[in-house]
Amino acid sequence: MLPVLVVHGGAGTIPKELVEMYSEGVRVAVRAGFAILQEGRSAMDAVVEAVTLLENNPVYNAGCGSVLNEHGNVEMDALVMDGRTLANGAVSAVRRIANAAQLARLVMEKTSHVCLTGEGASKFARAMGVPEVPEESLITDRSRKRWEKNLAPGANPVENQMGSKGTVGAVAVDSEGNVACATSTGGMLNKMEGRVGDSACVGCGGYADNRVGAVSPTGHGEAIMKVTLSRLILFHMEQGKSAQEASDEALAYMWERVQGLAGVVVVDPRGGWAARFNSLQMAWAAAQGQQLHYGVYRGEDLIQPLQDPDHHQH
Amino acid sequence: MLPVLVVHGGAGTIPKELVEMYSEGVRVAVRAGFAILQEGRSAMDAVVEAVTLLENNPVYNAGCGSVLNEHGNVEMDALVMDGRTLANGAVSAVRRIANAAQLARLVMEKTSHVCLTGEGASKFARAMGVPEVPEESLITDRSRKRWEKNLAPGANPVENQMGSKGTVGAVAVDSEGNVACATSTGGMLNKMEGRVGDSACVGCGGYADNRVGAVSPTGHGEAIMKVTLSRLILFHMEQGKSAQEASDEALAYMWERVQGLAGVVVVDPRGGWAARFNSLQMAWAAAQGQQLHYGVYRGEDLIQPLQDPDHHQH
Repeated sequence: MLPVLVVHGGAGTIPKELVEMYSEGVRVAVRAGFAILQEGRSAMDAVVEAVTLLENNPVYNAGCGSVLNEHGNVEMDALVMDGRTLANGAVSAVRRIANAAQLARLVMEKTSHVCLTGEGASKFARAMGVPEVPEESLITDRSRKRWEKNLAPGANPVENQMGSKGTVGAVAVDSEGNVACATSTGGMLNKMEGRVGDSACVGCGGYADNRVGAVSPTGHGEAIMKVTLSRLILFHMEQGKSAQEASDEALAYMWERVQGLAGVVVVDPRGGWAARFNSLQMAWAAAQGQQLHYGVYRGEDLIQPLQDPDHHQH
Repeated sequence: MLPVLVVHGGAGTIPKELVEMYSEGVRVAVRAGFAILQEGRSAMDAVVEAVTLLENNPVYNAGCGSVLNEHGNVEMDALVMDGRTLANGAVSAVRRIANAAQLARLVMEKTSHVCLTGEGASKFARAMGVPEVPEESLITDRSRKRWEKNLAPGANPVENQMGSKGTVGAVAVDSEGNVACATSTGGMLNKMEGRVGDSACVGCGGYADNRVGAVSPTGHGEAIMKVTLSRLILFHMEQGKSAQEASDEALAYMWERVQGLAGVVVVDPRGGWAARFNSLQMAWAAAQGQQLHYGVYRGEDLIQPLQDPDHHQH
């Protein structure tokens, strides 16, 4: 069954007029990442490539297109983990870089630490030669309008946050059976300055272990953290559950304990995979063998041939 | 058996001349925190009180006495979690406050978020009326000397870090059977600016769930994060292991997978407890019933009456 790549573009309620864009973007990303796996390259390379494309796509709440915090700034969290060694890297509340997941990978590979935050992360980025980008290049009209809407008198920021959880992520198994995950996000709309969500917190916003599998979640970060969702799913898989069973059990538990909505993409080291969510929607896509699976609504599992001439890689 | 409080003052190699001070400090803290439990107050109140005393004690690597980062600054991480609701709060890389665990509790109680970092955490502290303290008030001569030693030509910062892991923490069960944990640290000696360790990462640097128990760890943060040590121990307890068995199994696994050294204090909701470590030493103390247990070296379990007239509460 190997290799396999599964990506998501956020769980929540996607505005109708954006559904096709959300779905198209994850398909483009999964094709590009899967091509890397087909070349025999690593699961880590594939998940970072897929997430980079999603960060660069202004539709999603990561990289360009990130939601704005209370002051109108973009602060991003990201995490990567390598199932071979359990090595992981993260950045939190980092500003003015285009690709937070790539920076998280540099933290993993080039430092003895696993997480750098804020200005320290920015300084590390400069030392690594990662270009600083103007904040404006990360901000879309849609992000700014939603931020302004929440500042208006009578606004209900909590309500307006629903549907905004377009965190992106990917999990993969490469042809050698190594698993990896990557997650990247602009966080929560109108969040407080310095707010760190699950996407920078290993075991919550992602986990990868060659012995068990890999998970990347999306959704209500604070709920995901309360149940350490990624690690929880892998514990169920260690107990013999399939990726799908483990995901459904953990999502149901999260709802029961803390009324949280979220979605996950999951792989096991043999190439089994799942894309599950208890939110209304999650844009996801999976590539394996000759097929591309994808969906947005619950129960949806559409299939295209990966080589479909109408769906060239962009 | 309820209530019970267990505290630690860091795992590692404690310099001989400091062993008595390390041990005395955890006994003072456990007596103070346990008095709160005996008054019928909450596990959360008790763990925060115990950790506050340890932060204020210059012996430990938390609050006053924190190790310095590469630039000679103090940046602190802390985490609290309430087992009743799974609510948790954290701060990371926060500067110029005396008691990071109290600020983490405010994040939990006064915001819709679970973690604030850096300058955002400082602004929140000011908004909450938490006094900003001069950085010098957090820096001891010992911290500064160790930092300078690592800047000297030929210094081996990694070697000099060994023995420096005096993170502090506490776990408790109150008389109603609620569990809580608190962890606080200055992090790793000569760490990079913005480095965040396990102590701000829920599931790694602490976890508390009324259904299972509570954990606060100390040791090599990056290793603790690779195995999400706190959540791992509680998963073993969910599978029927005692606090001690679960701790030993998880510490052995951490050594096998990532060669990490750490220690933990653990409680279960019935009042069972453990203080275990695979490092050479860990200063710990536990209070339950009429007895105070404590130790520093492996296998040590010394007992004093809690009311011992020679050991008045300070």
